[in-house]
Amino acid sequence: MFQYKELQNIINNEIEQLNFNIEPFELYKPIEYVLSGSGKRLRPVLTLIACNLFSDEISKAIKPAIGLEVFHNFTLLHDDIMDKADIRRNKPTVHKKWNDNTAILSGDAMMIKAYEFFFSLNPEILAEVLPVFNKTALQVCEGQQYDMEFETRLNVTVEEYLQMITLKTAVLLASSLKIGAIIGGANEKDANLLYDFGINLGLAFQLQDDYLDVYGDVKTFGKQIGGDIVSNKKTFMLISAIEKAKDENKKRLFELINSDNFENAKKIQEVTDIYNQLNIPFILKEKLDYYHKSAINNLNQISVNNDKINILSELSKELIIREK
Amino acid sequence: MFQYKELQNIINNEIEQLNFNIEPFELYKPIEYVLSGSGKRLRPVLTLIACNLFSDEISKAIKPAIGLEVFHNFTLLHDDIMDKADIRRNKPTVHKKWNDNTAILSGDAMMIKAYEFFFSLNPEILAEVLPVFNKTALQVCEGQQYDMEFETRLNVTVEEYLQMITLKTAVLLASSLKIGAIIGGANEKDANLLYDFGINLGLAFQLQDDYLDVYGDVKTFGKQIGGDIVSNKKTFMLISAIEKAKDENKKRLFELINSDNFENAKKIQEVTDIYNQLNIPFILKEKLDYYHKSAINNLNQISVNNDKINILSELSKELIIREK
Repeated sequence: MFQYKELQNIINNEIEQLNFNIEPFELYKPIEYVLSGSGKRLRPVLTLIACNLFSDEISKAIKPAIGLEVFHNFTLLHDDIMDKADIRRNKPTVHKKWNDNTAILSGDAMMIKAYEFFFSLNPEILAEVLPVFNKTALQVCEGQQYDMEFETRLNVTVEEYLQMITLKTAVLLASSLKIGAIIGGANEKDANLLYDFGINLGLAFQLQDDYLDVYGDVKTFGKQIGGDIVSNKKTFMLISAIEKAKDENKKRLFELINSDNFENAKKIQEVTDIYNQLNIPFILKEKLDYYHKSAINNLNQISVNNDKINILSELSKELIIREK
Repeated sequence: MFQYKELQNIINNEIEQLNFNIEPFELYKPIEYVLSGSGKRLRPVLTLIACNLFSDEISKAIKPAIGLEVFHNFTLLHDDIMDKADIRRNKPTVHKKWNDNTAILSGDAMMIKAYEFFFSLNPEILAEVLPVFNKTALQVCEGQQYDMEFETRLNVTVEEYLQMITLKTAVLLASSLKIGAIIGGANEKDANLLYDFGINLGLAFQLQDDYLDVYGDVKTFGKQIGGDIVSNKKTFMLISAIEKAKDENKKRLFELINSDNFENAKKIQEVTDIYNQLNIPFILKEKLDYYHKSAINNLNQISVNNDKINILSELSKELIIREK
């Protein structure tokens, strides 16, 4: 079995070999810019791990894995235009470094390019894998749409939120695993169990992200603590608090959300106090535990050796319980 | 053999049956909006015609043909954001009717959706057709990139211009034909001849468009005459004139291009006079004739009955010699 670091290196090496030094440069340079640097490469690594569960030969999964990484980075590129985000991974975003038109068009080219990486598969596998990828890609757009709509809505339910993060985040992790499994020769049941594992993993991961934004350690989390609170982002924490708050707490929470007159530190402190009073961190951790257990439960039903499954249970522990 | 009108009806009926009344509505409504109305449906009709040359059974080409039309309309949607165009086919553009974010994201969803229509093909054909489509889709992005770059350049050559319209317009016509031919069971040589025919047709078509913008009849052309002149669009006419103009003519042409102080009617009149003095309409018509003849030459080499080929030679005459 390959370990995470090895697989990440395989992906990084493969990405480094891609040649985007072609004309028109203004179209391809931003793609190279977005793909460079050393991210976690979580999605393509999951593809390779899933393939490796069923086959010692992972080489035929490498290009499709790159396709999933390219697609993921395309979504970040276009999301950053829509969210007017200036910084991504400590670098200016494409629409900041270049301009909106370049970001739109390079993003389009990047999405099209993502498909190309699947064409190395043999026709039968291609015809099986591509509809999985395509459905997921459309769902990611749906997730982004809901996320944007939630910004201007105060009555988002926890259920709606979970559906949104399923679409925006979880389905791509799930598909990355399923596609790797199919390429590795998994049967349908195992491929679907890996898909379900990915959904549960993605949900738990996002909930932990919501938690760490409030209760994380700035040194390990890497982002400013309380950023979601300052921007009124509809996270699991805020949505649950709006649902549960009563009387004085409810009144104060809406004052904090609706006014621009609070200093950031004060707003973060007060909202966190309300979260604590309403027991929101506990409620979140219960939910997160539920998804984590479901994920492990999915893994345990897969018809491969426990030793092999171990890499995924360890990884999910690391991703979900992470402090950063 | 099916006739154009019948094939157009098949495409329109199929598009009408698509259900975009699904959530999230804000994502799918713009797609329905863009696809509704009755355009020429040139690309999907070309796919069906090409298929029909080699097979009486065109049903398996219908969905891929729709995919090509969906892709084409996606490019218009995103181009209109980049070009800040307010009106398309007498309706407000998506980014005007909704907003930029909706136009970006619905466009993304539309492009992904385009791929879905190919999945009805059997795996072997899918694996043959999809790389053709994908390469073309990337080239269309390259064409749009060059088109945008040309806006701020005065030294564009005729050769560069022809390369740009090949990418932006001709390759998609060419691929629509080639894909139809492959689905219909054409051999490689015939499929490639249809591709080449499409390139020549596309180039001739675009040159005629450039010509009609200056010399067309407003009643039949449907657009305001001289629009390209007013906006300094780098058409074949303007690029050739910049290349050929000398002394007084050159000085005056640059004055007309670089100043905002001319009334539209005067600018159109003066630029047209320079075109006439430099014999640009004649040069354009010679070039157009060359592409038209090359297109017919491609057709004549295809190994099917002359009667069958007739629908394409008639169509190209109509498209190229059109007055509107």
